[in-house]
Amino acid sequence: MTLALRQLATAAADFEAEFQRVLHWSAETDHAIEARVAEILADVQARGDAAVLEYTARFDGVQADTVAALEIPRGELEAAFEGLPEAQRSALEAAARRVRAYHERQLEAGGRSWSYRDEDGTLLGQKVTPLDRVGIYVPGGKAAYPSSVLMNAIPAQVAGVGEIVMVVPTPARKDGPSADARGERNPLVLAAAFVAGVHRAFTIGGAQAVGALAYGTATIPAVHKITGPGNAYVASAKRRVFGTVGIDMIAGPSEILVLADGTTPPDWVAMDLFSQAEHDELAQSILLCPDAEYIGRVRAEIERLLPGMPRRDVIRASLEGRGALIHTRSMEEACAISNRIAPEHLEVSSCDPHRWEPLLRHAGAIFLGAFTSESLGDYCAGPNHVLPTSGTARFSSPLGVYDFQKRSSLIEVSEAGAQTLGRIAAELAYGEGLQAHAQAAELRLKR
Amino acid sequence: MTLALRQLATAAADFEAEFQRVLHWSAETDHAIEARVAEILADVQARGDAAVLEYTARFDGVQADTVAALEIPRGELEAAFEGLPEAQRSALEAAARRVRAYHERQLEAGGRSWSYRDEDGTLLGQKVTPLDRVGIYVPGGKAAYPSSVLMNAIPAQVAGVGEIVMVVPTPARKDGPSADARGERNPLVLAAAFVAGVHRAFTIGGAQAVGALAYGTATIPAVHKITGPGNAYVASAKRRVFGTVGIDMIAGPSEILVLADGTTPPDWVAMDLFSQAEHDELAQSILLCPDAEYIGRVRAEIERLLPGMPRRDVIRASLEGRGALIHTRSMEEACAISNRIAPEHLEVSSCDPHRWEPLLRHAGAIFLGAFTSESLGDYCAGPNHVLPTSGTARFSSPLGVYDFQKRSSLIEVSEAGAQTLGRIAAELAYGEGLQAHAQAAELRLKR
Repeated sequence: MTLALRQLATAAADFEAEFQRVLHWSAETDHAIEARVAEILADVQARGDAAVLEYTARFDGVQADTVAALEIPRGELEAAFEGLPEAQRSALEAAARRVRAYHERQLEAGGRSWSYRDEDGTLLGQKVTPLDRVGIYVPGGKAAYPSSVLMNAIPAQVAGVGEIVMVVPTPARKDGPSADARGERNPLVLAAAFVAGVHRAFTIGGAQAVGALAYGTATIPAVHKITGPGNAYVASAKRRVFGTVGIDMIAGPSEILVLADGTTPPDWVAMDLFSQAEHDELAQSILLCPDAEYIGRVRAEIERLLPGMPRRDVIRASLEGRGALIHTRSMEEACAISNRIAPEHLEVSSCDPHRWEPLLRHAGAIFLGAFTSESLGDYCAGPNHVLPTSGTARFSSPLGVYDFQKRSSLIEVSEAGAQTLGRIAAELAYGEGLQAHAQAAELRLKR
Repeated sequence: MTLALRQLATAAADFEAEFQRVLHWSAETDHAIEARVAEILADVQARGDAAVLEYTARFDGVQADTVAALEIPRGELEAAFEGLPEAQRSALEAAARRVRAYHERQLEAGGRSWSYRDEDGTLLGQKVTPLDRVGIYVPGGKAAYPSSVLMNAIPAQVAGVGEIVMVVPTPARKDGPSADARGERNPLVLAAAFVAGVHRAFTIGGAQAVGALAYGTATIPAVHKITGPGNAYVASAKRRVFGTVGIDMIAGPSEILVLADGTTPPDWVAMDLFSQAEHDELAQSILLCPDAEYIGRVRAEIERLLPGMPRRDVIRASLEGRGALIHTRSMEEACAISNRIAPEHLEVSSCDPHRWEPLLRHAGAIFLGAFTSESLGDYCAGPNHVLPTSGTARFSSPLGVYDFQKRSSLIEVSEAGAQTLGRIAAELAYGEGLQAHAQAAELRLKR
């Protein structure tokens, strides 16, 4: 069965219309989900633990008498880590070490307090402090990603967050003989929580977990920010509690854009396109390249490799539904199109990636050169893999240490400074009709 | 008429209950407003300019044939500036200069790209770039604050934003004889837009302006982030377009907390409490002080000064409804209570403010020492006056240059690095069941 993978050329007359069709994606607002989530949140806010227990029994099939019984003790996290096969354990530790090292650089590069005094002795500055307590949502069930635990918890840990609370649903399996009343706990996820310094962990999920973290219950402490991916219910709940707590971005389907000059082995590029497509039927993989012959070679590799991939059905659906191979007039044009897309992952698969990097204005992460497969960045290069999707890289950033810090302005006006500033402030305050503002400044003037 | 201003003491048995009553404030979700805003946004998205014109005529009483006619040409902004009285003009310029200087420090302190290479030659870094285009919402009518124009536009300008688009409604006055068909344009607001480097300005407001900025119309360019305060319709619209564009925080009523050791002239403190209270009946002014006698002196000054304030009715309503004078056991305890409140504005009105500052963990801006009235910070000290309210200083920050920038991770794995990282990534990817991720890493291994 040949693959119906779209091929476009910027020189074609219908390019713009075809390109718009490729790009088009919008998260449908599901009003039924929104209404259901609003109810669950209100219920958790009103009834606390009791509501959390009920929803966990109903949605996850996990019965417990108290929410305390749903807490995973730190010892169990450690035991999960100790119980891993040696290769997994050391891979997890190595990945955590590199992610931590990168985020420590991030802290040094912009996460410190600063201040200065101006000529009249007035001190101005910015105090940077960690959040007291944050919640990390980790999806359970089939899409359990321990790497996401590292990517959410480590920046919080590096920022110095006082308490990191993880929630992860552990839905009881309905299909197998090994159904555990506590639900299925993924040992790699628990081990990752241990390595990443998670302080407390609860086996709850869905909108009820988001509500418990946002409002607090008798057992679950209220946090100040909630990060981490989740399904439509989780996303809707996060959007709704935004303001009561901080949240990270609402993530859409994953995306990769490969900008190729034709010098990378084509099977590498094919596999990189697969590695996004295998996430999800809605994931998007796009190749931009000025070399038509090379595009043909990548297509041939895609067709050769696809049948051997365990997740070939998902990959095929994703490539056929949202993928595209785009022949451009030049690398410069490819960069311009990439800026219009603002992809989550952007591979510059070129022998001269630093020539193109300055032209790239919008992307979550930029992977330079043939050896930098997106998957290295996903797991262990160091930078965060939680990245802005659906074009939001135009205005938002990878998850980072800065997401777990907040800033306070510092101002200490000297007596001399108050004389100059007071006159300016009073003039403007009177102009705005705010007389108390003006007089507060004037009282500090020497008479 | 005596002032019914609440007085609490932490040593009193009922303190906790009383304190909770003082703190309690929650933005009511008005479902009627939400539904109306959803309709307006959908209509603006579907019909563009035509919808904007209709709503502007209906809500602001401003008739125009085209949206282009609602644009304020740059020349008119400049003329407004040139037409100001000399004192206002130079105050505006001085304020802009100081605000710009502070935000330039902010850019230097954390707003630059960085990268490093690790031992195997792998490059890791973070590229920081300005947003291409942002929208600034400026309220019109009675609460028109030119200082807010400076505080929103200058950080965007310092960040290097390509195009700053301002919207400001100019509702036609219904009460006066001078009704202008174009509505009332506030010259100080237009002048501030000129000084702050606003590129384009439109006299539109409400949810329709937020929709026009978020989705773009034939005349109004789509922006990537919308900042600035507004009424309940504007706040609801911003919340709803969040994700399509970035937004700043949704602001609640303004707040000041004064932490006093009893060494500041009590009339200064009284006036500082007024300067928050005069904003709005829902604004909150709180004094924390371990000296009961001093609290009495501040109260006396409040009663003496109140009758002379032009906005005394608003001040009285605010102080009686949400204000409090709180007698604490110590300055340490006052700091702890301040952390529970996480105020927008925090004055440390003390002869030794640096002793207390390290104890203060959550606040939008911290004003140190008796000469640092909050109003100096509002207008011209330099730091931003757009600050987190309603306790959100626990997790969010003043508006800043960072709000107008975004970051992209940079990764360039060397051939040597790909050998180490590839094995780690493959191990973890197989653990997560993502075989294409694993194979993309393995293809880069030397055989």
